[in-house]
Amino acid sequence: MTSKIVTAAMLAIGDELLSGRTKDKNIGHLADVLLLSGIDLKEVRIVSDEEDAIVEALNALRSRYTYVFTSGGIGPTHDDITADAVSKAFGLPCEHDAEAMRILGEMYKRREMEFTEARQRMARMPRGARHIANPVSTAPGFIVENVFVMAGVPQVFQAMVDNILPELQTGARMLTRSLPCGYGEGDIGTLLAAIQKTHPETSIGSYPKYDGKRFSTELVVRAREQDKLDAAADAILDMIRQLDYARAQGNSGPEA
Amino acid sequence: MTSKIVTAAMLAIGDELLSGRTKDKNIGHLADVLLLSGIDLKEVRIVSDEEDAIVEALNALRSRYTYVFTSGGIGPTHDDITADAVSKAFGLPCEHDAEAMRILGEMYKRREMEFTEARQRMARMPRGARHIANPVSTAPGFIVENVFVMAGVPQVFQAMVDNILPELQTGARMLTRSLPCGYGEGDIGTLLAAIQKTHPETSIGSYPKYDGKRFSTELVVRAREQDKLDAAADAILDMIRQLDYARAQGNSGPEA
Repeated sequence: MTSKIVTAAMLAIGDELLSGRTKDKNIGHLADVLLLSGIDLKEVRIVSDEEDAIVEALNALRSRYTYVFTSGGIGPTHDDITADAVSKAFGLPCEHDAEAMRILGEMYKRREMEFTEARQRMARMPRGARHIANPVSTAPGFIVENVFVMAGVPQVFQAMVDNILPELQTGARMLTRSLPCGYGEGDIGTLLAAIQKTHPETSIGSYPKYDGKRFSTELVVRAREQDKLDAAADAILDMIRQLDYARAQGNSGPEA
Repeated sequence: MTSKIVTAAMLAIGDELLSGRTKDKNIGHLADVLLLSGIDLKEVRIVSDEEDAIVEALNALRSRYTYVFTSGGIGPTHDDITADAVSKAFGLPCEHDAEAMRILGEMYKRREMEFTEARQRMARMPRGARHIANPVSTAPGFIVENVFVMAGVPQVFQAMVDNILPELQTGARMLTRSLPCGYGEGDIGTLLAAIQKTHPETSIGSYPKYDGKRFSTELVVRAREQDKLDAAADAILDMIRQLDYARAQGNSGPEA
């Protein structure tokens, strides 16, 4: 196991995500996949279908993280401007890729459909970009340096993510352990802060839950080494046992 | 109706959103609410529980948009650092707010619970911040200039959003009309681009749908004036009728 840290950002592109019309499903999917691959997703941005917004976000993210994954804006309509924006960000011409034209042309021919000007838009990408195969609807995504440009339709996005995974560097996988805790954050906050201090190579997260009546928490320990993870988790389980004991003595109740 | 444009960004804070452990529900909720209020949500960022990341994102967003809404990181545990980060972004001291201490102290006294050091953390905010009332669990959110700091637990976030709405400036409400279209983007892309060009005061979005076999689209027209909206929608309905006619003549099929 390597201890290298591999980082990533996601840039989700589309007015429909900001208008509430579409509830994004790709961010959560990518987060799940990257966690399993040991790649730290550090930041997500959602921007509208505006070239300047896409270019600026992409340039900020690609210089900062190992990988940037984008979703959306690579279809055939006038509001699909991701290929243009990515080209601009890299200072590359955006042109009809010969291989993409070929596979799209063949697909439409096979289906006895016209390869319209709009459909040909889907073959446009920055000069020299590599393809990301699209087994669902043929039109490829593409890769420029550390930027992976994929479709917004969740079925296509997920298929493209599957296709790029084998070529990604993976980091030391972050190990996690989730501990349900019947006490609210107010009961455990000070104790938990002390546990975090004595286990600096772990990251302890506390996530409040509210069932309409009372708060509980889910405590999540993350570490890159199993023994560090176990030691912090044991300390948390001890804390919960002590609180249970105190509650049995009538000293405290499990609320926020 | 005013024609003023009011813009907003959202900053969702929390490792759990980036690890896939929690699928965010607040972004979609805020997007829905802002759309109804005529406030343009222009950008969303999700960052981890790291002070530098929060400060940088907040400063970038608050200078650019009319409002910034944050979610997460205002609970009682050590990883709740939003109050500190917001204070740092504004160059203000972060301190226990007297009124917040009072209402939290009373609440815990009423519930015969100890007002622990951890719980007192929930009273910390930048000096001079105004409160956002929290009818669910008492601990207030807060407002500094154009930044609205709210909880991450969806029930609390939503209650806080309800509480701030009356004081937000609202813009000319964006009118939208959604038109289902049985044709894929490849069939309509060129026609739709032409319609967009002749209706420049509208924004026409095309959102592909895929049912596992074939693509269709949802076409969404947005405009701030009803007559502009109607004219563009009529042009789109004409386009669909013409495609239906062509299909009936055997010229084209409804695919991507």
